[in-house]
Amino acid sequence: MDGEKFTSVGLRTLITPEGELLLTLEEESIGDISPDEVVIRVEASSMNPTDIGLLLGPADLAEMAAISHNGRPGLRAPIPPEHMSSLELRSRIGKSLPVGTEGAGTVVGAGENAVDLIGKTVSTMSGGMYAGFRRVNAGACTVLPTGTSAKDGASMYVNPLTALSMIETMRREGHEALVHTAAASNLGQMLNRICINDGIPLVNVVRSEEQIKTLRSIGAKYIVNSSAQTFFQDLKAAITATGATLAFDAVAGGSMADTILRAMEDALGASQTAFSRYGTAILKQVYIYGSLNPEPTVLTRTYGSSWMVGRYLVLNALQKFGEETTLSLKNRIVRELSTTFASSYKGTLSLNDVVNPDFAKEYTKKSTGSKFLVHPSL
Amino acid sequence: MDGEKFTSVGLRTLITPEGELLLTLEEESIGDISPDEVVIRVEASSMNPTDIGLLLGPADLAEMAAISHNGRPGLRAPIPPEHMSSLELRSRIGKSLPVGTEGAGTVVGAGENAVDLIGKTVSTMSGGMYAGFRRVNAGACTVLPTGTSAKDGASMYVNPLTALSMIETMRREGHEALVHTAAASNLGQMLNRICINDGIPLVNVVRSEEQIKTLRSIGAKYIVNSSAQTFFQDLKAAITATGATLAFDAVAGGSMADTILRAMEDALGASQTAFSRYGTAILKQVYIYGSLNPEPTVLTRTYGSSWMVGRYLVLNALQKFGEETTLSLKNRIVRELSTTFASSYKGTLSLNDVVNPDFAKEYTKKSTGSKFLVHPSL
Repeated sequence: MDGEKFTSVGLRTLITPEGELLLTLEEESIGDISPDEVVIRVEASSMNPTDIGLLLGPADLAEMAAISHNGRPGLRAPIPPEHMSSLELRSRIGKSLPVGTEGAGTVVGAGENAVDLIGKTVSTMSGGMYAGFRRVNAGACTVLPTGTSAKDGASMYVNPLTALSMIETMRREGHEALVHTAAASNLGQMLNRICINDGIPLVNVVRSEEQIKTLRSIGAKYIVNSSAQTFFQDLKAAITATGATLAFDAVAGGSMADTILRAMEDALGASQTAFSRYGTAILKQVYIYGSLNPEPTVLTRTYGSSWMVGRYLVLNALQKFGEETTLSLKNRIVRELSTTFASSYKGTLSLNDVVNPDFAKEYTKKSTGSKFLVHPSL
Repeated sequence: MDGEKFTSVGLRTLITPEGELLLTLEEESIGDISPDEVVIRVEASSMNPTDIGLLLGPADLAEMAAISHNGRPGLRAPIPPEHMSSLELRSRIGKSLPVGTEGAGTVVGAGENAVDLIGKTVSTMSGGMYAGFRRVNAGACTVLPTGTSAKDGASMYVNPLTALSMIETMRREGHEALVHTAAASNLGQMLNRICINDGIPLVNVVRSEEQIKTLRSIGAKYIVNSSAQTFFQDLKAAITATGATLAFDAVAGGSMADTILRAMEDALGASQTAFSRYGTAILKQVYIYGSLNPEPTVLTRTYGSSWMVGRYLVLNALQKFGEETTLSLKNRIVRELSTTFASSYKGTLSLNDVVNPDFAKEYTKKSTGSKFLVHPSL
């Protein structure tokens, strides 16, 4: 089927060999539609940290400037030279990349095997969702239940699947409780709702009294404030009470992972009667899944003989789980979309807004409760 | 059986609540011999880094002083106050601990079920081997082949089992080649001999031209000098040539693990055609098994979405493998004791020497080729 009639404006990010990052809006045909494909008019796409990272992660935000590109607004910002040596950036040079991991909208075109989807509201995690129209495989779409808006389905993959995959990982790797940092985030609140439902002990690490209130109001039991003088002792007490030997850490830089491992080993050691110079043999695992603090991770290695720190990516985790488990997680998300997996947003941006330096200053702030929605058809 | 006739002098290490470390020689009966036990007259015990760590690891070596204790020589040294907060040290306070992970000697006494071992030369990894006599379970002893001396069997567990367990771990965790740091050590030379025998690509990281020569002379193919200006490029080239995605790192502190992970990701990324902002999905694993550099480990997290850094302890690894695999590794060690698993020593120390500050300065030097043997019956 001919997709020429769907001419779409989409957001692109590009790094030049000179070390400049460009965000532009490009007009393009969505191309031919294969029998198994559909065309979605994108009506809501979320701004996850991973998207913001792709948009502006390496740029010097203080130097952002508005530009005009083919008669549309755009943005340019320099990349500090020391960042340009990273493998990720070097491999991106000269490649114009689409943005927008997940989103939802109305099916407005379809190949012959997918015509029954026309008119339906669907969501997908196919990437490139910061665009007016998006051609994707029908099999990659989830049809939203009647009465569910595109906005409701804009965030139904990244955060919900991440939260559920953490619990699945916990079970598969033999842990019985977990620690979560930056725990008042959208994701953190979902994780609390899952853990309360499923009876899983969860230690929430936050950095303010206000965040403690937020979590307390949704029923969280163990909340520890990393800004408090008593942080280490509070954390150890909560780990002792829960038996947590697994942590998911979005802070990443500095000593957070180290502090968690020390608290776990202290908690485990206190219940161990015989002296062992190698410490406890129980595996203590920290998975780093974000990078709120971009500084290096510092490990003092003072927590015995059995610990591991690694990067966690939900896509890799799902691949390990396999298709059947992934589908069952997705089905749970659809069932609990308006309860466990509800998201809230600070505001809605058009594509013009996303490339506006003033809005960019807002959405790049790494603070809890500041998640934005993008409406590419606005 | 009555073991009273075996009065033994053994070395003990003790940390006082005031933060002083004491090495003393204590006279004690080895106690009653159960039917399944034997008494070994210890004639050779090796000084592994783990033993030296237990002897003097936390102490301020510049402040070591000779003492006299019950008419025998001893040693005391202060522990810097900042070390005393570690969980390991706090849990050691007031506990007089024996030292000497592994060793060999002649069986001079036995319970009724083990009398056939009397007169045999055996080796064991039962701990507490820095003592004239040691009572152990017969099942924990390996009878050395005829013509093998106690000295030959003094190091047959810690290094050989560690080297073999690294290869076993490599196979079980799906890697096909490996990187090893501090690679000219006794352990590193064994690992080269195993890898050459078994056809496993091994990247050796050393820090001097002399160490390169040592490894070259035993047939090592990939050797990289971390002191060279071209270290990173050399390492990347060797990793590209071998496909190594697993490393065992004895350096531990500073940026070694980070550098290895960056080189692995660079090597993997170069062979990847499509751009992925998450980097490669292939797991890159660094196991830290020593602590030649006691500084914290610093991780920049610039190596994609799939990496892990953790502590490696041979005892934990063997437990994971199970008894059957462990036994087959031990059998291989006995078969190849004078070839693959031969150790060389800088000298032999008596127990009096071990607690002598002048000798202590020597054996605590963390340099390749300076391994000492202890002869507790001297």
